[in-house]
This record gives sequence, structure tokens and C-alpha cells, in this order.
Amino acid sequence: MRKTKDFIGKIFLTDDSSTSRWHVIDDYFITILIVLNIIAMMLESIESHYLEYKVFYTAFDYFSVAVFSLEYLIRIWIADLMYPNLSKTKARIKYVFSFFGLIDLLAILPFYLPMFVKIDLRFLRMLRLLRIFRILKLARFIKSLQLLFTVFKEKKEELIITMFGSSLLLILSATLMYEIEHDIQPDKFGSIFHSIWWAVATLTTIGYGDVFPISGWGQFLAAITALFGIGLVAIPTGIISIGFVEQLQNKNTELSNSESEVEPKSVSHFEYCPYCGKKLPEHE
Amino acid sequence: MRKTKDFIGKIFLTDDSSTSRWHVIDDYFITILIVLNIIAMMLESIESHYLEYKVFYTAFDYFSVAVFSLEYLIRIWIADLMYPNLSKTKARIKYVFSFFGLIDLLAILPFYLPMFVKIDLRFLRMLRLLRIFRILKLARFIKSLQLLFTVFKEKKEELIITMFGSSLLLILSATLMYEIEHDIQPDKFGSIFHSIWWAVATLTTIGYGDVFPISGWGQFLAAITALFGIGLVAIPTGIISIGFVEQLQNKNTELSNSESEVEPKSVSHFEYCPYCGKKLPEHE
Amino acid sequence: MRKTKDFIGKIFLTDDSSTSRWHVIDDYFITILIVLNIIAMMLESIESHYLEYKVFYTAFDYFSVAVFSLEYLIRIWIADLMYPNLSKTKARIKYVFSFFGLIDLLAILPFYLPMFVKIDLRFLRMLRLLRIFRILKLARFIKSLQLLFTVFKEKKEELIITMFGSSLLLILSATLMYEIEHDIQPDKFGSIFHSIWWAVATLTTIGYGDVFPISGWGQFLAAITALFGIGLVAIPTGIISIGFVEQLQNKNTELSNSESEVEPKSVSHFEYCPYCGKKLPEHE
Amino acid sequence: MRKTKDFIGKIFLTDDSSTSRWHVIDDYFITILIVLNIIAMMLESIESHYLEYKVFYTAFDYFSVAVFSLEYLIRIWIADLMYPNLSKTKARIKYVFSFFGLIDLLAILPFYLPMFVKIDLRFLRMLRLLRIFRILKLARFIKSLQLLFTVFKEKKEELIITMFGSSLLLILSATLMYEIEHDIQPDKFGSIFHSIWWAVATLTTIGYGDVFPISGWGQFLAAITALFGIGLVAIPTGIISIGFVEQLQNKNTELSNSESEVEPKSVSHFEYCPYCGKKLPEHE
Repeated sequence: MRKTKDFIGKIFLTDDSSTSRWHVIDDYFITILIVLNIIAMMLESIESHYLEYKVFYTAFDYFSVAVFSLEYLIRIWIADLMYPNLSKTKARIKYVFSFFGLIDLLAILPFYLPMFVKIDLRFLRMLRLLRIFRILKLARFIKSLQLLFTVFKEKKEELIITMFGSSLLLILSATLMYEIEHDIQPDKFGSIFHSIWWAVATLTTIGYGDVFPISGWGQFLAAITALFGIGLVAIPTGIISIGFVEQLQNKNTELSNSESEVEPKSVSHFEYCPYCGKKLPEHE
Repeated sequence: MRKTKDFIGKIFLTDDSSTSRWHVIDDYFITILIVLNIIAMMLESIESHYLEYKVFYTAFDYFSVAVFSLEYLIRIWIADLMYPNLSKTKARIKYVFSFFGLIDLLAILPFYLPMFVKIDLRFLRMLRLLRIFRILKLARFIKSLQLLFTVFKEKKEELIITMFGSSLLLILSATLMYEIEHDIQPDKFGSIFHSIWWAVATLTTIGYGDVFPISGWGQFLAAITALFGIGLVAIPTGIISIGFVEQLQNKNTELSNSESEVEPKSVSHFEYCPYCGKKLPEHE
Repeated sequence: MRKTKDFIGKIFLTDDSSTSRWHVIDDYFITILIVLNIIAMMLESIESHYLEYKVFYTAFDYFSVAVFSLEYLIRIWIADLMYPNLSKTKARIKYVFSFFGLIDLLAILPFYLPMFVKIDLRFLRMLRLLRIFRILKLARFIKSLQLLFTVFKEKKEELIITMFGSSLLLILSATLMYEIEHDIQPDKFGSIFHSIWWAVATLTTIGYGDVFPISGWGQFLAAITALFGIGLVAIPTGIISIGFVEQLQNKNTELSNSESEVEPKSVSHFEYCPYCGKKLPEHE
Repeated sequence: MRKTKDFIGKIFLTDDSSTSRWHVIDDYFITILIVLNIIAMMLESIESHYLEYKVFYTAFDYFSVAVFSLEYLIRIWIADLMYPNLSKTKARIKYVFSFFGLIDLLAILPFYLPMFVKIDLRFLRMLRLLRIFRILKLARFIKSLQLLFTVFKEKKEELIITMFGSSLLLILSATLMYEIEHDIQPDKFGSIFHSIWWAVATLTTIGYGDVFPISGWGQFLAAITALFGIGLVAIPTGIISIGFVEQLQNKNTELSNSESEVEPKSVSHFEYCPYCGKKLPEHE
């Protein structure tokens, strides 16, 4: 029993570094199944196509849920291998309420819930939307996605400041535009909320073209907002780009540092400072 | 009396660093009231909703103005605590004409003015727009917003140059487009000002789609303008992004410097130059 | 005579650094006149307004041309002060064919030409467009604009490469889209040139909305083009932004260097290397 | 024979560095022919123009194919000069299946194929599209384009991560928008694929304006998607910009290094550290 569990652990715990190659089974199989689920979800939305192949899609959904359910149960079972310093029960509870534990549950819930609870149709449709969480299951297998989250966390402060500034700008310009254009285009600038829709389309430079000012003052305000505001809204992009490049450089530096263990810096072949061109004092 | 004033000063002067925690009252209470005012302003713009709950919104406005007025009076009263090296009168005058003093006044003015002056309806509406200054009251409580202003001030020179270049480009392309498209689309390119509206929508890449060239030469000019001009208009964004990251790095450096007081630099654990990997000469 | 010329030279040659303050007259007067000319040009384009004030605008144009002509003649006269190591005639020829010499001429030419040559109406209108060169006269007085040109010159290589890449991408995507959408929307994708108009609007993200693919394959191509191509087209912006910041840092470094003449570097108050935190070897 | 081959090799192998100047013939002649082919392809798409000058364009196509075929045969013939350490046959096979070998073939194939194989009309049109590969022949002559590919290769990791993140975001927002707007605008959000078309237009900020949400919740989702998502999609641009500047700096550094051969660093004129302003220890 212990042995079986350990073996299954080797398959499912991708955190098991290098030594075990069994988790490739899990990696590939589950990843492919998730991707197929996403494709199926997209194809199902083509009504005529769905009605024709309904039997197939239903069967595929049963199969997917069966696999994901099995995966969920196994992950609960082997939770104590994931958190080795917790008791069995605590480890299981911890997994169930962990980020990926909840996603694993939400990805299969829309299938089981209607069996136990009586649900009206509208809510049922919203339930089916939960299948979207199957996409998020992918995140477990893609380690590089975690880098993206790290960048967001690193630049949190900058992002909050600019987000806040952008929000204020959004509300300010929307309110002013509402006052200017409300009387001329009451259907398009019916309230400040409608006006915010205009402000979002303008400050992000999407410009769908469904709402735009037609009065001279309105166009003047739009021009000012656009020329000054776009910068503010676009700043987070610049910040994240810079953070991203920094993050990957750090990772590479750490890598090259860990490779050279004797010398604290792996650049001992430098005899002249690359910065100032002078010969450097010798190692003592 | 002195004591009461000092106590109230502790509540209202957020510039009072660290020691007093009383200003949290002011921070939270006023901040929440301002945010509620913004939400109310947005909801009031939905006409049917406003007519139904008019009594509530009027009451809330009375309450807000009462609080903001009280706050304004208190701030005038304790102005001498804010500028301790000025006389009482001078401190009060300085506050009244300071940036935030004027905003505090403008935020309540639209309420009081109609009581004293006879105002026609159109002007009354513009007065109500002054409520927008309540949003700007927020800026006092958000220290990080000031960082944004610092960046703008730091990069003033770059911004002015590019703004100027953008303006010239705007006028040049608008004038040329006016000459090309005026005869073909007299309603859309009626004057150079109409043409500037096109140029803004193009150079900011908003592209609402209400105005665009239809002649071959017009489209050629638009393509050239877009390909060469967008860069120019987008440069300020890049500049501000870079300035922003620089600013925050400076702040962090200062922070880490002030933390280590004995050593002028807190990096005494470096034995090898992080740049060239050579052992550095010892401290003398 | 010599003296008068020198005095006028002091007024007109803004290249005369620091010592003379007379050129402020020229700077301010001509600059303001140019700005007024731009404003007039824009207002004249409002037909009803122009017809009403035609007399005024004509008078203003006569006055402007008179001043600009006088300025042009004076600049020819004092050309030898501008190029002191050339003979009088050579200096004048050099000025006339210099960048600003040609602009000065083109700015007044549309006024004089119809007097000497018989011109049909259509060509006359194009001549009037030459007034746009009055805007470019501004460039002489705005030194900071020259920084912008420097950045473009510095990053020439990068810009040419990306421009070339963008052009190829433009033609490739336009050709493919033409083949896909030509049969479905023959009016919008009538030829590859029409298709290039779509490609420009897409790759610059303007998206006016007058032309867009409607077939599945067309939308697929548009999506691929947008996701991969936008980056390419936007790269020049990033490059110019970086170049701009670099340029201004260089200028500031030169400035601070020229201020400290005794010490080669003005940072002698550093006792510890700001980079590695170690005390630096003493000056010998 | 050998001599002729060597001479022709000098003309066609642009990889032959510096010594031979004969390859300029090939460079200029073929480059100009390719550019003329691109222009012809664009002009041919104007139907009325093509019908009028059909004879000319057919003749030009015959001529181009003749030249490109000759070039292809020559390149096969001299393949052993290109890969000197391979046998004749192996070198020729290697060239034929190399990137540029395939492009050279595909650029002339649409002309020859209909002679040998019976082809229906629809496939014939697709064949003609292969002429687009003539554009790619240009890449051989433009060395700087290769820099662009280098940047893409260098920043591969970053690009893949962000591309992946963008794709997930695209599918997520498209699915949610489909669920929200499908019932209200069944013609525009008919399936998730239609919805992805909206998501692409929004996240790239193109915003053609053919599809946009009209319900409150849809507009809310669009706003959230736009404000948070644009950054993600725009990151690759920032990354490539930075990579581009880095790449060109490296190239310049290598150049300046290879120029100074005696001193490992060409900065021996520095007596003071440019960083900290202290005199540096002398060369030992």
C-alpha cells in the first residue's frame, strides 16, 4: 500500500524534482486532456455543430470528469506526501483548501451539483461556466506562468499607484464628458456609467467607435484626455516589461552563480575591470 | 484650549509622522466619505434612479457638505500647527490659498454660492460640476499619488519637448489632411479643427472610426502619419515609465541607506566586487 | 554701416551665445508672429468665419509676408556674420540654400509667385499650402526640438531595420488578406493597395473600422497579424524612448562635468564606492 | 571550368566576405528584380489596370521566372563552394533543402507546376499566392533583418511565457464574454470563436468596432479585460525593444573591442574611476 502510494506520488507530484520521471505521465496526459477540454468547450459553442455531435461531446465530458475526479481523489489521498510534515488529515484539508485544490474541485463541480441539488435552468448555465476553471488547471503544469505572477507581485507598489491614478483619471474625464455630452447625445451618455464606458475605450485607445463626443468642447476634452491620459494607463505595461526582464536576468544570474561553486563569482578570467579598464588588485 | 487644538491637530495633520495615530480617524472617515460622494455622484447621473431616491441623495449631500465644511473650518483653525514658524493669521492665509486649501473650498462652494448670489440655471449646473473637486481631496490621503507628480516634475524637460513635437506633428498632418479631404468629405473635414480631431484619433491610435480619409492620397498621408507619428506621441509614456521605475529605485535605496547607520553603505558583506569578481581592497 | 550690421546681427543670430541679449527681440517677435500665423491658418479654414473677416485675414497675411520678407532679406544681408570664414557672396549663397534659408523662402513664396507667373487655380491652392512652412520656421527658435532630431539620427540603424521589417510584414499580410477577402468584400479589398490600408490600420492598432475581414480565415489572419505584428511596429517607439532618455542623460553628464573643472569628476566626496560599498584607495 | 565556377561563386555567394566585390552584381540585380516583382504583384491586383497591361505583366513574369530559375540552377551548381567540406552531391542536397533553397524553389514553382500537373482553377490561384515567397528572397540580401531574428531567438523564453499568458487570457475573456453577450447579440457572439475575434480586437486595442458588448455586465467585463489585459499583450513589445537595444550595443562593443587589439579594454585613458571619481590603482 505504502509502495503503491509512493509510486503514484511520483507520478502526480510534479514538485518532485528531477529524480522521478514518472510524473511525465501525469504532466502529458492531464495537460492534453485539459487542452482537449478547452477545444471542446469552444467547438460546443457552435450550436449547429454541437447539436450534430452532442453524443460525442457528452461522452467526452463524462470521460473528462471521470479522469479529473479520479485525479482529485488521488491528490487528496497522497496529500500527505505533498506536505510531509503534516498529519494525514491536516495535509488533506490543506490540499482541499489550497489554490489548486479549489480549482480541481470547481473544475468538476458543475457535473455533480445538479445530481444532488435541484437547480433552475439559469443557474445551471452559470454552473457550466465553471468548466472554465479547467483552463486554470493548466497553470499547475506551466512553471513559467508562475514567473509572471512573481513579476506582478514584485511591482505591486508601482502597479497599485498607477492603477489608482488611472481610476481617478477615468472617473474625472467620464464625469466631465457626461456633463458636456449628456444633453446632446442622451442615448450614448445617459449616465456617468455610460460615460465611463467611453473613457475606458478612449484611455485604452481601443476606440470601438460606438460612443464618441460630437460637440466641439467634447472633442476638445477627448483630445486632452487622450494625449495626457494614455500615458498614465500605459505605464503599467512599461513597468511590467521592465520587471519581467529584471526577473529573468536575476534567474539567469542565480543559475550561473550556482554553477560556479569554488569562486564566489565566475568571472575570474577578468584581469581588467570591465567598467573602468584598469587592472584590478590581485586576489589576496 | 491649546490642548484641544493640539489633539485635533494630531487627528487632522497627516503630515504628523509616525508618533500620533489619531490622524487615522481623519484619514479613514474623510476618505470613505469622499469615495461615497464619488459613488453617489455617479449614481445620481442615472436619472430614473435619482428621481426615486432624490430625498436620500439630497440628505447625503447636506451631510457631506456639513462634514467637509467643518473639516475646512478646523483646518483653518489649526493652520498654525501646520506652518509652525508663521504667525496665526499668515498661516491661515497660507492654508486658504494653498493647493489643498483651494480644493477644500471648491468642494463645498457649489452648495453655498446659490444662497448668497442669484444664479441662473445654466451656471448652476456648472457649479454642481465643482463637486468633482471632492475627488481631488483624496489626493491628500494618498501619499503614493505624490510620487506620480514627482515623476512628472523630474521628466518635465523631456515631456515638454515631446509634447511640443507632437503638437507640431498634429497641426501639420491635420492641415495637410484638410487640404486633401476637404473637397471630398466637406462634412467630416469641414475645417482644420475637424481635421485635428481626426489627427488626435489617429496619432493616439484610438481610431473611433467617425472620421477617416477615403481618397487614395488621404489614406497614404494617414498611413505615413500613423507609422511615423505614433512613435512620437507614445514617447512620453516610455519616458514616464522609465522615470517611474527610477524614482521607486531611488526611494528604496534611500530607505536601505537610512536603515544602516553605522556603515555608510549597507553592503559590507561584499568581499568581491559584484561587478568584476575581484577581491576588493580592504577598509583602511 | 558695419556697426548697424553688427547690431542687427546681434538681434537675428540666435546662435550668438550668451553675450548679446538683443536676439530676444527677434526670438519673441518672430515666434509670436509665427504662432499667430498658425492660428490664423486654422481659423481661415472655417469658411463662414473667413468670409466675414476676410479683410482682416488678408491684411494680416500682407503684414506677415512683409515681416517675413524683411527678415529674409536681413538674413541674406548679414549672412557673412553667420559664416565668418566665408566671403560675402559665398556666405549668402550658403544661407539661401541652407535648410532654414529654403524654409524662409518657401514661407513667403506663395505670396509672390502669382505676381510673376500665371498660375491656374488648382496650382494656386497647392501654393497656399506652402504657408505650412511657416510652422517649420519655429524650429529655429526651439533648440530642444533639435534634441529630437539627434535621437532619430543616433538610433538611425535600429529604426531603418525595424521600418524595413514592418514594411515587409505590411506587404505580406496585406497580400494574404487580399487573396482571402477579395472575393467576399470586393469593394473593401479591391486591390492590394486597399488591403495595405487595412494592414496599416491594424498593425498600428488604429482600427478605424471601415475595413475589416469578415470571413473566418480572414479574421484568423488578422488575429495572427495583430498579435505578432503589433510588437514589430511598436518597437521603434521603445527604441526612440530609450534613445531620448540616454541623450538627455549624456547632456546632463556633460553639463555637470563642465561645471567642475579642477577635479575630473565632481564626486570627490565619496569615500566608499557607491557600487561595491568598499572604501576606495586614496588619491595619490 | 573550375575557374568559371569560382568566378560565378564570387558573384553569387554573398557570404564571401570583403575580398570579392563581384557579388554586388548579384546583390543589386536580384534585389531590384525582387522589388519590381513585389510592385508588379501589387499593381496586378488592380483589375482594370491588369487587364489593360496584361501582356506586359505576363512578359515581366516570364522574364522574372527565367532569371530566378537560372539563379536557382547556378546556386545548385555552385553549392559545393558554399559548403566546401561536403561532397558535391551532399552540398547540393543540403542547399536544396536549406531555408533559402526551399524559398528559391517555391518562388518559381507556381510557374512550372501547371505545365506538369493538371490543376483545377481554385488550386491555381493558391499556387499564384506562392509568388509571395519572392518577397522572402529579399531576406538573403538584408543582413540587418537577421538581427531581428537574433533578438527573437534571444528573448524566446520571455516571449513564449507572455504569448502563453496572452492566449489563456484571450480564451478566458472570450468564453466569459460569450456567456454574457450570446443571448443579447446572437449574431455577433454566435460562438466562442466569434468571441475570440472580439477579444483579439480588444486586447490588441485595435477596436474595429464591428463587435462590442452592449450589456452592462459585458461592458464591465470588457473594461476589466482591457485595463488588465492590454499590459499582458503589450509586454512582448517592451521585451523585444529592450532586447533590440541590447543586441545592437553588444555588436558595437564587439566592434570597438576588435579595434583595440593590444589593450584588452580600450579605455586605458581613464585615470579616475568613471563611477566613483577616485583615482584607480595603477597597472602593475
